[in-house]
Amino acid sequence: MRYHRIPDETVRRLPIYLRGLMVSVDQGHEHISSQALAEFVGVQSWQIRKDFSYFGDFGTRGVGYSIEKLAREIKKILRLDVIRRAALVGVGDLGSALLAYPGFGGYGLDIVAAFDTDPEKIGRVVNGVRIEDPSGMDGLGGRDISLAIVAVPRAAAQSTVDKLAEAGIRGILNFAPCKVIAPRRVKIITLDIAMELARLPYYMPAGGSSEHPMTGGSPQPGVS
Amino acid sequence: MRYHRIPDETVRRLPIYLRGLMVSVDQGHEHISSQALAEFVGVQSWQIRKDFSYFGDFGTRGVGYSIEKLAREIKKILRLDVIRRAALVGVGDLGSALLAYPGFGGYGLDIVAAFDTDPEKIGRVVNGVRIEDPSGMDGLGGRDISLAIVAVPRAAAQSTVDKLAEAGIRGILNFAPCKVIAPRRVKIITLDIAMELARLPYYMPAGGSSEHPMTGGSPQPGVS
Repeated sequence: MRYHRIPDETVRRLPIYLRGLMVSVDQGHEHISSQALAEFVGVQSWQIRKDFSYFGDFGTRGVGYSIEKLAREIKKILRLDVIRRAALVGVGDLGSALLAYPGFGGYGLDIVAAFDTDPEKIGRVVNGVRIEDPSGMDGLGGRDISLAIVAVPRAAAQSTVDKLAEAGIRGILNFAPCKVIAPRRVKIITLDIAMELARLPYYMPAGGSSEHPMTGGSPQPGVS
Repeated sequence: MRYHRIPDETVRRLPIYLRGLMVSVDQGHEHISSQALAEFVGVQSWQIRKDFSYFGDFGTRGVGYSIEKLAREIKKILRLDVIRRAALVGVGDLGSALLAYPGFGGYGLDIVAAFDTDPEKIGRVVNGVRIEDPSGMDGLGGRDISLAIVAVPRAAAQSTVDKLAEAGIRGILNFAPCKVIAPRRVKIITLDIAMELARLPYYMPAGGSSEHPMTGGSPQPGVS
C-alpha cells in the first residue's frame, strides 16, 4: 500500500484517535463510526473522515470502521507497530510513578532500564526494572533502547540529555521544568506539569462573569 | 495601568517566559536581556520584545529587563499573583508523586486537599495533606479551592470531573488518558503521559537517514 503525504496536523491527531480506539475496544466494540469516534476524541467527524482518507479508507457504510484494522494502520504510521524499549533517568517520586505507570503498554512502549545517582537506590528493583548507576547510560545504544524519559531535577536535565544523545537515544520525554537542547537527530518533548497547572487560572473567569478582565476574550470551552 | 488586548499566542508563551525568569533568578541574576531570555526559553528575541510590549516595557537599554518586575507583571496577567489552592483526586503512584512535587510552589499553586476511594489510604497524611474520602469533594467550594488535579484511573475520570464541576472547581489538570468534558465555565487541560511518549517514534529517523519514509518531511528539530 502506498501512502499519500500525510499533513503534520493529521499526524498530531493520530495518537488521539488511537487512544479513542483503545477506549472503544475496552468497552467491547469491534467497529466504530466516525460520529462515535468524534465523541470519544473531541474532533469533528468530517475531520476524522478526511484524516483517515490520507491512508486508505477502512469504513463500511452502516458498520463503520474496523477498530482493529484502523488501530493497526495508525500504529504503523506512528511507528508504534514494534515494541519500543525506553530508559528512565531519575527514579525519584515522579520517576517511580512512571515506572509503575500502566499506560505505556497500550502503545507498545516498554521501560526496560532505569538510572539514578542515589547509591541507596542503585541495585533496587522497581516494577521489574533494576536501577543502575548513571555510568551505564553510555551503553544504551547497544541495548536496543531508543527512547528515554528524563525525570531528574532541573539542574541535571541538560547534562542528562547530552549523555542520552551521545548514547544514541533518538527520542526524549523530558519532565524537568526547563528547556533542554539536543542535536537535530534527537526529538524532545517537554512535559512541565507545574507549568500546565499554572496555565489554568488565566482561563478561569473570576466570579460569575464570563468576561476576562484583561483581554476581553471569552475563556476556552471546557473540553480537553 | 491599562492593558492592551493581549493575543492568545502571547498568553500561551507567558508561562514559558515566567519559567525562564525563575531559572535566571536561581542563577543569581537580577536583570536579563531579551537575547539571554531567548536562549533560556527557545523563543526569538524579537518575539519576546513584541510580546512584552503588550503590557508595558520594563527594559532598560544596556541593562535589560528587571526580572522581578517582569515576573510580577506576568504573574498578574496569568492570575498567579495570589496563592491558588488546589485539590488532588486519586492518590496512587502518580498522585503521590504530584503531592510531593516541588515545582508547583514557584507559581503560587498549593495542593491543600487530597481524595482517594481506598479506605486504607483515607486518613493518611502525605506531604502534610490528609487524604479524605471522596464524599468530601462536595464541600470544595466552601474551602476556597478553585483548581483540581485528576489522577484517577480512566474509568473514574469523567465522574470525578462531574463532581468537581458541581463543587465549583473552575480549572482541572487531568492525567487520566481520555477526553473528559465539563461545562464551559470549567477549563480542562489533559496531560496524557503515555500518549506524549508515543508521539516520539514518528519523529525519530530510522537508522541514519533524515528522511521520513511516509511523509518525506524532515523531523522537527530537537528543541523543546
